[in-house]
Order: sequence, then C-alpha cells, then structure tokens
Amino acid sequence: MVKLDEQRRSSGSSGASGTERANTVAFERLTAADPWVVDVQPARDVMPGYRDNLVLTSGAPMGWSDYTGGQREALIGGALFEGLAADREGAIAGFADGSIEIGACHDYGAVGSLAGIYTASMPVFVVENRDQGNVGFCNFYEGKEPRRLNYGCYDEGVHERLLHVNTVLAPVVGEAIRRQGGVALKPLIARALRMGDEVHSRNAAASVLFSREILPAVLDMVRDGVAGVRETMLHLAENDYFFLRLSMAASKASADAMVSPGSTLVSAMAFSCRGFAIRLAGLGDQWFEGPPPLHEGKLFPGHTEDEITWMGGESPITETVGLGGFAQACALSLQDYQGGSPELMIERNKEMYAITHGENPTYRIPLFSFGGTPTGIDARKVIDTGILPVMDVGLAGRDGGQIGAGVIRAPRECFEAALRSHAAVHGEV
Amino acid sequence: MVKLDEQRRSSGSSGASGTERANTVAFERLTAADPWVVDVQPARDVMPGYRDNLVLTSGAPMGWSDYTGGQREALIGGALFEGLAADREGAIAGFADGSIEIGACHDYGAVGSLAGIYTASMPVFVVENRDQGNVGFCNFYEGKEPRRLNYGCYDEGVHERLLHVNTVLAPVVGEAIRRQGGVALKPLIARALRMGDEVHSRNAAASVLFSREILPAVLDMVRDGVAGVRETMLHLAENDYFFLRLSMAASKASADAMVSPGSTLVSAMAFSCRGFAIRLAGLGDQWFEGPPPLHEGKLFPGHTEDEITWMGGESPITETVGLGGFAQACALSLQDYQGGSPELMIERNKEMYAITHGENPTYRIPLFSFGGTPTGIDARKVIDTGILPVMDVGLAGRDGGQIGAGVIRAPRECFEAALRSHAAVHGEV
Repeated sequence: MVKLDEQRRSSGSSGASGTERANTVAFERLTAADPWVVDVQPARDVMPGYRDNLVLTSGAPMGWSDYTGGQREALIGGALFEGLAADREGAIAGFADGSIEIGACHDYGAVGSLAGIYTASMPVFVVENRDQGNVGFCNFYEGKEPRRLNYGCYDEGVHERLLHVNTVLAPVVGEAIRRQGGVALKPLIARALRMGDEVHSRNAAASVLFSREILPAVLDMVRDGVAGVRETMLHLAENDYFFLRLSMAASKASADAMVSPGSTLVSAMAFSCRGFAIRLAGLGDQWFEGPPPLHEGKLFPGHTEDEITWMGGESPITETVGLGGFAQACALSLQDYQGGSPELMIERNKEMYAITHGENPTYRIPLFSFGGTPTGIDARKVIDTGILPVMDVGLAGRDGGQIGAGVIRAPRECFEAALRSHAAVHGEV
Repeated sequence: MVKLDEQRRSSGSSGASGTERANTVAFERLTAADPWVVDVQPARDVMPGYRDNLVLTSGAPMGWSDYTGGQREALIGGALFEGLAADREGAIAGFADGSIEIGACHDYGAVGSLAGIYTASMPVFVVENRDQGNVGFCNFYEGKEPRRLNYGCYDEGVHERLLHVNTVLAPVVGEAIRRQGGVALKPLIARALRMGDEVHSRNAAASVLFSREILPAVLDMVRDGVAGVRETMLHLAENDYFFLRLSMAASKASADAMVSPGSTLVSAMAFSCRGFAIRLAGLGDQWFEGPPPLHEGKLFPGHTEDEITWMGGESPITETVGLGGFAQACALSLQDYQGGSPELMIERNKEMYAITHGENPTYRIPLFSFGGTPTGIDARKVIDTGILPVMDVGLAGRDGGQIGAGVIRAPRECFEAALRSHAAVHGEV
C-alpha cells in the first residue's frame, strides 16, 4: 500500500478546480500503475501484519456479530480449514471471544472474491506496482465447483480443493512465476480485452495468455522433474476463471496508488453481507457505507430470484480501475452467462463515461474504435448524473454456492456519504 | 475429397426449387462437417497423387508461362527449396520442359496461403472431416518475417525458416497431435470466434487455444526427452498466425463435403496472379474464372498502393465456410491491421447475410446476439443483389513480401460464369 504520509507530502487544495487537479493526479497514478505478479507465498509470510489466528473477509470491517448468513459460514469454514478450531462450535466461540481475529482484506493490501476468506496458510499472488512500488495481494480461485469457501460453503470437498491449491497448484505456479522473473499483467490484460475478456466475469483469454507467459518456465520445470507441473497446467487449462485473482490483485495494486488528497475519485468498492462501501482516493482508508447493491442477473437452472444473497465481494476493484463492467463491451459473450443483450451491455458500458474522469490509455475497447475504457469513477459525477457504477459479478445463493451471475450497481448512498466527508475537509465540491 | 461418383448417386433436379433443395443439402453437409487435425506428414507421404517433382500453387491451374511476378518467383523458390534444380535458370528450364510439374493445390485436397507453394518434403496438416470421411491439407505458416516463400520471396533466410519447419516445428507438432489422438478444430474455432478471432486474418486466440489443446502431450514429450519441444512451443507462443493453416485445412475439409448436384452454393474461392476463380457445390471441380479481386487495404509504413500485386491466395476457403470476412464482427481488432472502422466491419459482415444460404449453427457472433455467421455463398444471390463476397487477406508487394492487409471482394464475373454453366446443365435458376 502507498503510505498515507505520501499523501501529506502532496499539496492539498480546496474548491472545484482543486478537486479537479487532485482527480487528475489520482487518475494519472492509477493509469501509470504497472502491476507485475512476482511471487506466490502463504499469506502469513508476505502480507504485512498477518497473524496466524487472523481470518480476512470482504467489505468494510465489522464485528463478529454483524456477519450473517453465507459470510458468517465462510468465516467459520476459514477457521476450520486453518485448524484454528476443532469444530464449528469452537470456531464460533473463538470469533466471539476474539481468540480468532477477523480482519478486512483491504486493510492488508488484499482483495477478496465474494466472501473473500483468507487464512494464514493460504497462498497469495504477490503483485507489485512497478510504478509506485506498492504491492497488492489476492488468493487463488478454488475451481469450477459451485460449492466453494468464498461462496459460503465448507465441507470435505471444499477442504480438499483448498488443500490442493496450497500443496500443489500454488507452489508450481509460484515457482514458474519466480523462474520467469515475474509476469507483467498490464499488457496481458490489455491483450485479453481484445480477446473477449473484461477480466472480471470473463477471464477465458487472460487465463490462457497467463499460462502461455509461464510456459518457458513450466517446460523447464518438467525437464527438471518438479512435481505437480502437469497436474497444475491441466488445472489451469480447464479453469477459465483462474486469472480473475490476478486481475483483482493487479487492480488492487493499481487502485492503491491513487492516493491524492482532495480527490473525489473512487479508490475501492467492496461489499459485505451488510452493505456496500467505497473509498475515495482523497480520503485514505475510510469507508463510506450504504445498503447492499442493486442487481439484475441470470440464474443457473433450478434457482430462483429469492435465493440471491449477499455474502461479500471485492472483485469490483476491477471496475474501480476501468475493467469488468466498465469494459463489458469487450466481452459480449457474457450475455450467455450473466444475461442481457449485446445492445444492453454496450449501452451500460457507454454510460460509464459519464461518471468517470477519463479514458484509460492502456485498456481499450475494439468496438469503440479502441477508445480507452471509462476509468476513475468520480463520486461527484455519480451524484450529478444519477448513474450508478455497474459491476459484473457472480451471484451467491442463500444456502451457499454460486447460483448465477449478473450485474450489480453500487448504491447512491455511498457516494453521498463520501462527498459529505469530502466537503467537511475541503469545502463544497 | 468426396468422390464425384457420390454426386451421381444423389438425385439431380432442375428448376428453382430443385436448386433450393440442392443448396440445402450442400449447406447441411458443410455445417455438419467435423474437422479434426490428426497428423502432420510430408506432402509426398499423405497427399494423394503427390510426386517428388510436383510443385503446387494457388488458383485455378494454368500453364507455366501464365505464372508471372511474385507467383512465378514463388514457384521457382519452391523448386530450389526442394532441390529440383541447382539454380534459378535450371528451375525455369525444368518448369518450361515439364520435368518440374506444376499443380493446383485444390486438385490435391489442399489450399495454399498467398502463392501457396507446396513441395514434396513440406509437412502438411492432415485434417479429417469425421462427418464425411474426406481429408483436407494445408502446409505450415513460415513465421512473422515479411519475406516468405508464399509472398514470392526466396533467399537464405526463407530457406532456413522453411527447413526449420520441416526439421523441428512440424515433427514436434505432429507428434503432439498424434499423442493427443487428434484435435477437434470445430469447437476450437467456435471458441476463438468468442475470443476476437475470425480465423483468417486474426488467429491470436485460436493459436493459443491450439497450444493449450496439445499441452498434455507436449508436457509428456518434454518428460520423455523429445528434442525441439521447447523451441517449438515458444515459436507457437510468438506466432499469432500459426493457426491460420489449421483454419484453412479445416475449411477445405468442410467445403469439400458440400458436393450436391444442382447446388449454386460456392464450394471454393481462390485466385492466382491472373485472376479470381470459384467452384460451385453442384458443378464438381470446375473453376469459373474472372479478373483479379477488388480490394481496399491498409499498407505497412513505407509502402504505396501501386505496389500491391496478386500472386495467388486460397485462404478465402475460410470465407467459403462462413469464417474470415463473414465473421469479421467477431474480430474488430482487425481495424488496426487491415484498416476500416468497427462500424464498417460490422456493416460488411451483415451484408453477407444477403448472399448466403443460412446462418452457421456452430460458428456464432457474440455481437449479433450469437447469431450464426452468414454461411454458404449462393451465386444466385450474389448476382441478384450485386453484393460481392468479402474476404480478409494479407496484401503482397510487387517486389515480394507482405506489405499490408485488407479486404478484397470476389469479382462478379466468376458468379456469372458459374451460373451460365449451372443453367446449361439444370436450366434457368
């Protein structure tokens, strides 16, 4: 994370033109970010301040009793997976008495997918922003099975798959990344946008491009007799969502560089079971909260609208940097997965230009004559236009597991709250 | 190739409704085709009737003296590469006295890219249509270097790169394909259309997807110490055009299945230095010739319009089966490479529905709500509407080498000639 004292060194300024200048700084720091994945290591070894009894989860931080439904189940599952409690009751007691600690992913430089559970032994991608030197983290995709810890499920199968990530997939992918001397993610993402991805709900191209990037190291590892390589590469080949966690970590490392006092640009969007929250580039780590997001989606067969539940999500860090829903005109195939028509997807994407600071110089949309994606959500413009940021997400079911996919909109209240705080510091905007 | 006696067994019928029925049969045979690449072998070993002194080239067959410019140079280069003559003069004399034979690719079940030179030792992809049992062939992409044999160039560098294909790339790719038990190309192409390719002038996704398909075999080959695997896989990773030759062979194997007496659907489009030619599904191997194609393109820096020259091309076999220019709305990134705007590309693609028999059930366009690509060019509709089939192609320069890319249109005269022959056999259409 970029240190807050860097903020203090920058010059603060008030009024609309000061805000505009601050936003330009934030936008430039965001778009200059140069995220590279350089390593994979257990959370406890690389995430600053990580403790063995710490379980991270998505959204603005809350007390244990505020976590309900699938997010609560996911926390319990995380504690059990890590061996912090012998059984469910022990985990609940541990969270209640504080012997098992809960943290918010963003406070540790990480972002969580859905419930976003991190435990000490879980391997994380280490993504370095080579422009500013700050680092972002994200843990691994669990695989295609709808029952996953990050969707509020924990059972023998979930346990096995998480263990397989820890013991086979992550060590192999980590060694390949180190042997390659890191992989530049920004050009890879830019390329994936020309290949039908928006790197939030569609990562088919980025996943196969990433495998190609590490191929030289992988071939050497096979030659050297490293264990688990074949298995790992076949897992990658079968999991089109694999890259999402790299996209998230790259986005986090980019968004964290936006630090710019006085800026009204959004530097994070996240939600918990309780509600949605945003951060502004000009107001540090403070969260501005609102109700849960609005949604429209497409459910997997056999599921109904009333099953949809919120159990957290920080993958909207991709939209924060001009990807995902803000690049959905690149990924029209998503109409099959999350519903909507090409026309609607294009319209939604275009709408986002009205609430963003500028066009991304690197992430471009072929359908818009290679115009840059709308980037840098300006809270002022959200309020002025009434257009709410759109995000491509997976939908979780009441009983755990993924039951569909769709788009959500960030609630207006978050932006109102953020601008009130901004005004309190900098005057009216 | 599907035998002509199969045609005779089918029922011929006259008149417009007979033509319509014949076209439906041709369309169904085309869209039911199931091309698999099953092997890579030298042309002499797998192409029926291949002879050691035979050099194949693109377009309707002609006598030696009709080949001019880059296509003539390419033929000479082919003879030299194969060692059929000691020098340029010897090659020219050999072609002139018939001791070096010239054939048309299509007559040997193959298709040629640009000048389309095949010699006996050149490895070819063997693509089997598992629906009808017929086989199509295509040789290998030479690499990114603008100076290539198929663009009318032959020198030390071209020689080395062709030899590298023969001795390293093709043996490794062939072994991987055989170890995999073949690779199904139809689902791979369908997938690539959702990833920004049209598999004629853009093959970035298909190339990386193909590498992924053979990855299990490749990893085993590294383990087994097979030579050249790393080098070959890195070559594939760097050559986004690699898949084109597989796309062409798959298209040839599909189009050759269209055999349907009385059909006015186009079963091949090809050109030579002299002119453009088409075949109809209802009229066997007969070519209907016209002048060179019409074109609009974008040239690489430093080149001018008057340098553009025709030296052959049979990659329009992709358009014949509903790919390439007929799927260009999938591949809007091509605006950078071959010129044009997204709007123009979409418009061109939509136009093709007016001259085709139906929508492809497998090859679909996300931007058109997953509507099938316009498939099965009906010569009658081309004449009735005046809309000429559009093709995405590379452009060759007068002095050899690729100097740009663009779209071409098949000339009206070919369709007129074809319909005259059709009418002579079946009455007016």
